[in-house]
Amino acid sequence: MSAIRHALNTKREDDFAAWYQEVVSAADMAEESGVRGCMVIKPWGYGIWERIQRLMDDRIKAAGVQNCYFPIFIPLANFEREAAHVEGFAKEMAVVTHHRLIADGKGGLIPDPEAKLEEPLVVRPTSETIIGDAMARWIQSWRDLPLLTNQWANVVRWEMRTRMFLRTSEFLWQEGHTAHADADDALGETHRALEMYRACAEEDLAMPVVAGEKPENERFPGALETWSIEAMMQDGKALQAGTSHYLGTNFAHAAGIKYQDSEGSEQFCHTTSWGVSTRLIGGVIMTHGDDDGLRVPPRIAPHQVVILPMLRDKPEDEDLLAYCEEVRAALAGQLALGEPIRVLLDKRPGKAAAKRWDWVRKGAPVIIEVGSRDMSEGKLAVLRRDAIWNLENGKTAFSFTPREEFAAGASRLLEDIQANLFNEARERRDSNITRDVTSMDELAAFYADDKRYPGWVEVQWSKPTGKALDVVVEQLKALKLTIRNVPKGSEPADGACIFTGADAVERILVARAY
Amino acid sequence: MSAIRHALNTKREDDFAAWYQEVVSAADMAEESGVRGCMVIKPWGYGIWERIQRLMDDRIKAAGVQNCYFPIFIPLANFEREAAHVEGFAKEMAVVTHHRLIADGKGGLIPDPEAKLEEPLVVRPTSETIIGDAMARWIQSWRDLPLLTNQWANVVRWEMRTRMFLRTSEFLWQEGHTAHADADDALGETHRALEMYRACAEEDLAMPVVAGEKPENERFPGALETWSIEAMMQDGKALQAGTSHYLGTNFAHAAGIKYQDSEGSEQFCHTTSWGVSTRLIGGVIMTHGDDDGLRVPPRIAPHQVVILPMLRDKPEDEDLLAYCEEVRAALAGQLALGEPIRVLLDKRPGKAAAKRWDWVRKGAPVIIEVGSRDMSEGKLAVLRRDAIWNLENGKTAFSFTPREEFAAGASRLLEDIQANLFNEARERRDSNITRDVTSMDELAAFYADDKRYPGWVEVQWSKPTGKALDVVVEQLKALKLTIRNVPKGSEPADGACIFTGADAVERILVARAY
Repeated sequence: MSAIRHALNTKREDDFAAWYQEVVSAADMAEESGVRGCMVIKPWGYGIWERIQRLMDDRIKAAGVQNCYFPIFIPLANFEREAAHVEGFAKEMAVVTHHRLIADGKGGLIPDPEAKLEEPLVVRPTSETIIGDAMARWIQSWRDLPLLTNQWANVVRWEMRTRMFLRTSEFLWQEGHTAHADADDALGETHRALEMYRACAEEDLAMPVVAGEKPENERFPGALETWSIEAMMQDGKALQAGTSHYLGTNFAHAAGIKYQDSEGSEQFCHTTSWGVSTRLIGGVIMTHGDDDGLRVPPRIAPHQVVILPMLRDKPEDEDLLAYCEEVRAALAGQLALGEPIRVLLDKRPGKAAAKRWDWVRKGAPVIIEVGSRDMSEGKLAVLRRDAIWNLENGKTAFSFTPREEFAAGASRLLEDIQANLFNEARERRDSNITRDVTSMDELAAFYADDKRYPGWVEVQWSKPTGKALDVVVEQLKALKLTIRNVPKGSEPADGACIFTGADAVERILVARAY
Repeated sequence: MSAIRHALNTKREDDFAAWYQEVVSAADMAEESGVRGCMVIKPWGYGIWERIQRLMDDRIKAAGVQNCYFPIFIPLANFEREAAHVEGFAKEMAVVTHHRLIADGKGGLIPDPEAKLEEPLVVRPTSETIIGDAMARWIQSWRDLPLLTNQWANVVRWEMRTRMFLRTSEFLWQEGHTAHADADDALGETHRALEMYRACAEEDLAMPVVAGEKPENERFPGALETWSIEAMMQDGKALQAGTSHYLGTNFAHAAGIKYQDSEGSEQFCHTTSWGVSTRLIGGVIMTHGDDDGLRVPPRIAPHQVVILPMLRDKPEDEDLLAYCEEVRAALAGQLALGEPIRVLLDKRPGKAAAKRWDWVRKGAPVIIEVGSRDMSEGKLAVLRRDAIWNLENGKTAFSFTPREEFAAGASRLLEDIQANLFNEARERRDSNITRDVTSMDELAAFYADDKRYPGWVEVQWSKPTGKALDVVVEQLKALKLTIRNVPKGSEPADGACIFTGADAVERILVARAY
């Protein structure tokens, strides 16, 4: 096997964190904005987010959930109510205190002391409390239930250490908020949303996940149950990629969300909330990226096929462009994965080879180069981004295909790439969950071994709560580990808890995590 | 003609402002949030916004503009730069000064004095300056031009007097920002965006507009030219529904947006910006609403056809629902106005008549009621929202149509309603622009006549600038009038300026406005 010259400077195995940063930049996904903790999402990154939004929104609407929009500002009083109600209430938020700037007399501007708000406003970190207020207005009787709402919005949580897409002060997300007549119905919705996230992650993002319940210490403040999907990144760490909360009647009590049941008595609603964010894009990068950049699964690729004409600044270019335009139109008229194929004919000035590597780094699923010889032979030079190297000779693995043949197989090709990316990631996940660790010593030894791929460990435990759980969390923290979740549908327990030695009641996933 | 009992309490002719508020509420579009100046956009209102977004976004993408996302927070320094640069700089903005809340010891929360920001951040009122910074990073050479970006986002401008959709402290919009090599190219983009807005307003929203250039005093601060589309509301007032600005090199100088031209010398870019907002929804209401509520043009209706089964809580309901579902599926499988027909089968509990009036007030273009007799006859009771009254007898104008016949004509019906709403509004606009006013006295007399539909007046003027223009603006202000724009393609001037008496150089539209 010849040496391959990869498109990135950093290899995953050398420095995964630096590699991640390089992909974000080399694939032109996002960049620092100069504003503390906030990023600029560039067209390719935002295009991927738009695709995720579209597919998730279709799933949300299909479930009968209706989109709304709620104010970005939340009165302090709402948080006082929550703080009284919830112990783990987080307070790192952007606080608006003034509504005007004035000149400071020295050429600068300052908040106008005359324009100080009577009550400061908080930039929403999440919208439970303000949507709770609306629900209390909107719900009168059992006929109004379930009330299923969702919002696509920006939220702000002041973060000290930020990392693009994974943890930023401002991020984009959707937050579903629903109210139900009883616990059963609310739990049903909690699981519907969780299953929707699993399906979207696996089918759309080609990112295999483990869906399960978070332990008590990782619950959303105020929730009775928090469920998550966890994805395994290529460095073996876990990424929490979406959460779904059953909130019981806690938020309903705080906001007064009540209804009259069919017998005329007043009841508190049971509520849920669930969300995914631009963090998913970080998950896509760390699931599918390779040493040449990103590989975008076709379902969420803004352009699934990119056509690069090898222009020479000569009159013949016109014929070549016409030929490429024919190829483009033929593909755009076809369906793949249930939608018209998204094809870009990239006519920008510049050498085709330079543009090819741009699109390799960005991870367009299929790249087609067309030169005048290809045109005269009626062929296309086709590169699959999920298999760009000829491992025999270390060169790019172009296949030269008659255009009709390519067009006829384009839909299958994209489906194949989608499946291939998923299968590769699923195999990595499945072969890296260890299930034979039966003591804390073994667990410590497992993660102490630097040469071994870390992955996740599934252990049995007795599900301690309160202070006893705190002790377990501390033990794990010393190993830089966290409990990810109790996988849905995992084997029943049949041994001893590795923390307490008592009889285990279930199995939990333990891992290093983002 | 029998007396019609309309669905709203307030008639347009009695109190247009109160009527507007009633439509917003009765059509379930939006409501006060309890947060100063911010509204909650409810599902029907937000659904209309999603439709407008989708159609506008298609137009934006078709023009080669790429969506991005920029931070919600803008450093004070950017505004200091702008304030130095721009005289008319508006300062009513939400200012973030702290990043944490702490308990005040009395059960409340306060901004943590320890967490005061070194430099306050402003919640974006518009993103020229932060996008300008990005452009300065992204553009090196002429090859990078034109740079065409757009953002869908929320923005905040602190407003003292707010009105739902028309003027709120937080609103949703899109803001296009582009950079070009020269004035010609930038002006071309300014006009492309303006034409896109005209087409979207007229073709999608069925809202006729006049596109033209704003006078100097109404320019966006820092712009060399500001163009607008102006729509005539049913009370005769003008609504500025979208703007497109040619910014010259002003913002490029402030942010350092430069490029190397093909000869290697450094040049400043010419930039543009253009935006429309949720204000468009206010325009739709005041263009198409009637005394029964809203009428939503089919292209932007979240549901174009609503089917209401007349359920009786009896076993026969099942057959009726199955029949309605067949009708729904047959319609959903068809195209109208280039997209699959959006049909809702409304199975909610409640009487069909009550639900009918719900959908009348919301303005679904076509409402279908189906009872068991209709089912047995294979018919549907069809109500066109743009013609719900039988003027002969004052009753609702249901037509009873065989289902196959209805399905066969559904696409044409929706096209017809779209065209009908547009034509009705266009006729109102065209017959209410007065062109024979030749003096200030006549203008004053025109608007003093309370019995007359006010409409707009097109007058000739000498295009005074600076202080001379200020005098004109004050004169008009005394009559509660403003200059809307200089309509594109209006007749050349051939008389005297009604303000100065000098030779006129062009014609301007004068109107009361929102």
